[in-house]
Amino acid sequence: MRILIANANTTEAITERCAEAARGAASPGTEIVPGTPRFGPAVISSGLENAIAAHAVLDLLAEHAGAVDAVVLAVSLDTALEAARQLMPCPVVGMTEAACLTACMLGNRFGLVTFGGTESYRLLVERHGLSGRLSGLVGVDFTPQRALSDPESAVRSVAEGVAALARGGADSIVLGGAALAGMEPALRAASPVPLLDGIACGVRLAEALVALAAPKARQGPMAAVRGRDSVGLSPALATLLRGGD
Amino acid sequence: MRILIANANTTEAITERCAEAARGAASPGTEIVPGTPRFGPAVISSGLENAIAAHAVLDLLAEHAGAVDAVVLAVSLDTALEAARQLMPCPVVGMTEAACLTACMLGNRFGLVTFGGTESYRLLVERHGLSGRLSGLVGVDFTPQRALSDPESAVRSVAEGVAALARGGADSIVLGGAALAGMEPALRAASPVPLLDGIACGVRLAEALVALAAPKARQGPMAAVRGRDSVGLSPALATLLRGGD
Amino acid sequence: MRILIANANTTEAITERCAEAARGAASPGTEIVPGTPRFGPAVISSGLENAIAAHAVLDLLAEHAGAVDAVVLAVSLDTALEAARQLMPCPVVGMTEAACLTACMLGNRFGLVTFGGTESYRLLVERHGLSGRLSGLVGVDFTPQRALSDPESAVRSVAEGVAALARGGADSIVLGGAALAGMEPALRAASPVPLLDGIACGVRLAEALVALAAPKARQGPMAAVRGRDSVGLSPALATLLRGGD
Amino acid sequence: MRILIANANTTEAITERCAEAARGAASPGTEIVPGTPRFGPAVISSGLENAIAAHAVLDLLAEHAGAVDAVVLAVSLDTALEAARQLMPCPVVGMTEAACLTACMLGNRFGLVTFGGTESYRLLVERHGLSGRLSGLVGVDFTPQRALSDPESAVRSVAEGVAALARGGADSIVLGGAALAGMEPALRAASPVPLLDGIACGVRLAEALVALAAPKARQGPMAAVRGRDSVGLSPALATLLRGGD
Amino acid sequence: MRILIANANTTEAITERCAEAARGAASPGTEIVPGTPRFGPAVISSGLENAIAAHAVLDLLAEHAGAVDAVVLAVSLDTALEAARQLMPCPVVGMTEAACLTACMLGNRFGLVTFGGTESYRLLVERHGLSGRLSGLVGVDFTPQRALSDPESAVRSVAEGVAALARGGADSIVLGGAALAGMEPALRAASPVPLLDGIACGVRLAEALVALAAPKARQGPMAAVRGRDSVGLSPALATLLRGGD
Amino acid sequence: MRILIANANTTEAITERCAEAARGAASPGTEIVPGTPRFGPAVISSGLENAIAAHAVLDLLAEHAGAVDAVVLAVSLDTALEAARQLMPCPVVGMTEAACLTACMLGNRFGLVTFGGTESYRLLVERHGLSGRLSGLVGVDFTPQRALSDPESAVRSVAEGVAALARGGADSIVLGGAALAGMEPALRAASPVPLLDGIACGVRLAEALVALAAPKARQGPMAAVRGRDSVGLSPALATLLRGGD
Repeated sequence: MRILIANANTTEAITERCAEAARGAASPGTEIVPGTPRFGPAVISSGLENAIAAHAVLDLLAEHAGAVDAVVLAVSLDTALEAARQLMPCPVVGMTEAACLTACMLGNRFGLVTFGGTESYRLLVERHGLSGRLSGLVGVDFTPQRALSDPESAVRSVAEGVAALARGGADSIVLGGAALAGMEPALRAASPVPLLDGIACGVRLAEALVALAAPKARQGPMAAVRGRDSVGLSPALATLLRGGD
Repeated sequence: MRILIANANTTEAITERCAEAARGAASPGTEIVPGTPRFGPAVISSGLENAIAAHAVLDLLAEHAGAVDAVVLAVSLDTALEAARQLMPCPVVGMTEAACLTACMLGNRFGLVTFGGTESYRLLVERHGLSGRLSGLVGVDFTPQRALSDPESAVRSVAEGVAALARGGADSIVLGGAALAGMEPALRAASPVPLLDGIACGVRLAEALVALAAPKARQGPMAAVRGRDSVGLSPALATLLRGGD
Repeated sequence: MRILIANANTTEAITERCAEAARGAASPGTEIVPGTPRFGPAVISSGLENAIAAHAVLDLLAEHAGAVDAVVLAVSLDTALEAARQLMPCPVVGMTEAACLTACMLGNRFGLVTFGGTESYRLLVERHGLSGRLSGLVGVDFTPQRALSDPESAVRSVAEGVAALARGGADSIVLGGAALAGMEPALRAASPVPLLDGIACGVRLAEALVALAAPKARQGPMAAVRGRDSVGLSPALATLLRGGD
Repeated sequence: MRILIANANTTEAITERCAEAARGAASPGTEIVPGTPRFGPAVISSGLENAIAAHAVLDLLAEHAGAVDAVVLAVSLDTALEAARQLMPCPVVGMTEAACLTACMLGNRFGLVTFGGTESYRLLVERHGLSGRLSGLVGVDFTPQRALSDPESAVRSVAEGVAALARGGADSIVLGGAALAGMEPALRAASPVPLLDGIACGVRLAEALVALAAPKARQGPMAAVRGRDSVGLSPALATLLRGGD
Repeated sequence: MRILIANANTTEAITERCAEAARGAASPGTEIVPGTPRFGPAVISSGLENAIAAHAVLDLLAEHAGAVDAVVLAVSLDTALEAARQLMPCPVVGMTEAACLTACMLGNRFGLVTFGGTESYRLLVERHGLSGRLSGLVGVDFTPQRALSDPESAVRSVAEGVAALARGGADSIVLGGAALAGMEPALRAASPVPLLDGIACGVRLAEALVALAAPKARQGPMAAVRGRDSVGLSPALATLLRGGD
Repeated sequence: MRILIANANTTEAITERCAEAARGAASPGTEIVPGTPRFGPAVISSGLENAIAAHAVLDLLAEHAGAVDAVVLAVSLDTALEAARQLMPCPVVGMTEAACLTACMLGNRFGLVTFGGTESYRLLVERHGLSGRLSGLVGVDFTPQRALSDPESAVRSVAEGVAALARGGADSIVLGGAALAGMEPALRAASPVPLLDGIACGVRLAEALVALAAPKARQGPMAAVRGRDSVGLSPALATLLRGGD
């Protein structure tokens, strides 16, 4: 089974880190294929960049259509998730979506901890229709850069956020954002509730979807588009819009 | 890996059918352990019976605590799901919950088709916090008995319900209720969107949870209870309430 | 008029306290009948125990079916409320439900104060469909045991919670949990808004329902069940599931 | 106990009919006091008239402040309900509010049937925060006038609406509007679920509130106003705004 | 174009201040017509007074029906807004409504700052169906009187509230209440997000509605009433209820 | 005042039609500037194409940043609306957003009629937080192509949808989609409630926003981005992401 780990911004180092985490989480027979877009923001940190990156990640996915069995969007805002599902012939899972859905199976409500602002995550959970399951959000005051240079302080600060969310009624906690990827082992001992890493959850749920072998919709918003004209898009993307021929 | 397929009513034949479906859906290394409660309703068909069956299924689960790696509740109303999560040291997944969460990964909204009334499913989806993802419910006018004696008509009627849900905006459709278990292959060709069987989804998601190895909560509503006294419960259940010793 | 005050856990002393409060609140012609389940948790303090106690309280109610004019569930989580309504030929009211509905007639929003955690009350109010009327919840950091041994400190702490809820926009305040029963007189002078005791509200609303003499539903989820088989239940409960003969 | 049955429009005949219904529903010791406003619409049949009638019914209530033990608003839109609660030193219940809250104690969801349009009732139930308990609304195509001249057809049409709501999942049904008052006996035999008359429910719940003797709020939106100046209002109303002296 | 600036309480000085603000915000060709009700509360500061003032402002509007091109309700609770739309042949805009709708065009979520309690604004935004766009409310602890006598402290306190709302995720901030009218220039430099004055927004949106020239509804709740009888209302209001002749 | 009418797909003819409609609706002093993206789908008719077009319309807007006073997105799904607000130094209004907000000022609830499916509009209204104001959606079974070739039948069909929405409680009706632009005059006589054209509403609301002169946010999600690196974007867009230098 081949799973594409699709970054939505153009920083190759993040793609590599996510692919590494995916390899650690995958079943023995699963091959991890890393992918980085040809264009777009270096690091998505605003809704504006996220809107631009949607095109970029769809452009990337079109290159792999037919050559992978599933896609995990390795971007914390699950950029272009629904559009990617319409585009691709295989299952597509977002990393934060995957962590949230896994959390739903571990208890009634989940919290989410991240570096920086929480508003975009609040909206994302709302868009996934899961606000009723969300107990709270904590934004730890750390830039991803500072987290890299002072990982011990970062872990300590995240642990405080984790503890606050647990006190506030979280039955489990989603680690939001690529900068928290790989931090779960360091936090586990101190956390009174389970912590969920989006890449690990995404890989395991993608494997489950491939095993279930649900066919692609032939009708409605998730069905493949056909006969759509366009201008100035990549050949792969333009071909898929026309219907694949 | 051992997965308990836990029926919540006392009809052994239903347990067997669900265990069979689970074996068909499981990974090679997974062993399916069927379980039927010692007491309770023969077939749950009302909220009253479901409330009684909650105790019955918890009594059943207590017998297997420590001896299985995960539990799939093989009962369409996900009877006692949260209590079971608190009780057991391993992951617990409800069959309808599993189908609904899988549906969330296949598109924006899902429908649900079942035999008979739909109100209890509407409430169940609401309790799971997924009403915003539900496009509609269709109750096919068939008793489970008639479905068994005239399966071709049953398939035809369900197929009509499936078509209506797809027209109404469902990106995928949950097959609700044990009576629909095993019907997916007969419906697949006619369905314009993917169909989801609760037992198959439950087994695959349970396997994913076991692989992710999230620890049990040590605090909050999902943590194991300790030091709780009781009267007249089974030794296994009473022991777990006291804290396992 | 005979009203069953039905405890859902097996501690007789709580039943007695609730029955005493009920006698104090009832109309002259009303007889209070206390009831304690034959089995189940000593004191419900988790969702797990509440799920077990549902069967226990239904088992208790079945013994009194036909012999009482109404039931008040004397348990703060309104355990098995809907199932009890389906089971019994007479009106059934939950004590917290009763206090919340009374609060709805005293102003726009109500608060709720209790000992310990508030999450199960938040979910209960949500399940009653009354979240839009809830201004806030305060959990006073006191065990019921400590409240019994140091009642003056308990009253002082509850009074602080009451004041905080009033400042936060509560037009009235529900006293949640059996441990707060009987505390209303001691709190009244200090409270800027009315305080509602579940047992008192339950008894008065039960009397109103008996007077209104609404017939039992003959169709739908609240109608009596008929012809349902079961295994290992008490004769009274099994008989009601079969349809009363 | 004296209960004011306060009409909000100026048609005396409606006041009399509601007072008659109230006398039929009240406990032996309860005296029913009918009241009709001095000014305002003859019959409220639009939001515009309802806004004007709010002042009119408050003006009426001010005349009775201190001389009655409770108020039932005998107007199907519960006109000025919250303002009336702030104004009066005694409990105030709206007739539709009372029927809806009673319905909440008889099952999970209730329907509402009325003559003519249903939109104002939908908004009223939403304003009461009870939309989650509402299964549906049916507007029978009958003017109140035609209902009076051809009562048999009216009953037949309402019975059809009742049956439709019961099929749609209503556990009980609120009879909305003064024109349906008194029709419950004629409908009872045919209805598969209980029917709720607002005046009867209002009187019984008002009695329960008087018996519970909850004190008036001394703080917040339900507390009496003090020291408020006004121009051109009735002496009774102006005096209450100033604080009662 | 003539726009009526309709106060809903009887304090002429507030009318004048709002009219002044309206003149400052209006297009060159727009004439501002101030209006004060004949009766009602001096200053609306409770739901009770607001219910009385609804009749008063409708009485005022009826005097101007046909003589103005649009109405801005110069009262922070948008008193009688829907009834006014039904009554008048021209567009009617509420000042807080106008600020909230303008805020919707400047970002995802808006905050609201006011003097005193915030609960009535929370309810108003909910009634406008805009709660999902509201990030938070701040009530500055200042009476309008003290704000007039110590405007510098008032501006400082409001600026703190503005900063708190901006930190809490507000993309813009509505200045709620007549006492904040005119304060926008003094606050602008310090505010990190745009501030919205209800009178200015109301005048500009009223001008836009007049320009769009949408016809009055001929059917439904917004259509003019016809043939409605009443008692004791002003000739202008009674005539409009009868249908304008 | 210069207003950019920004199409989000690459079909120039649609841009021209929208610009024409905008000129008809604008104030005398307003200049309409039409704009069509350099790349992207010919006509957006799926969520997938809409996600791609978001980048395309942002690319277009970046070319005009600083050279126009406001932007109206001339695309019925308000493509990239929030990102456009973050990108541009001037107000940005979506055509469907503008029609919906205008509808909010004409009554309580609005309907929406369009050609084809309605699901994407339901989601759009939900994303705007206005679902509580939406009475219903009607999708007329007509392709935009057939509407162009047989305009009389198209008008007749839309008129039927308009009538159905008015019966269903719509106080006004939004004409959704570019294919309905310009149809309002032909429908007006037959419609019992006002009809709202997105381009006309967008132009008038954009003019109002320019007149109100609200400053751009300096903080939060609507503030301009600064110092963001990117790869392969247009010089204008890349420059704005870097902060405009």
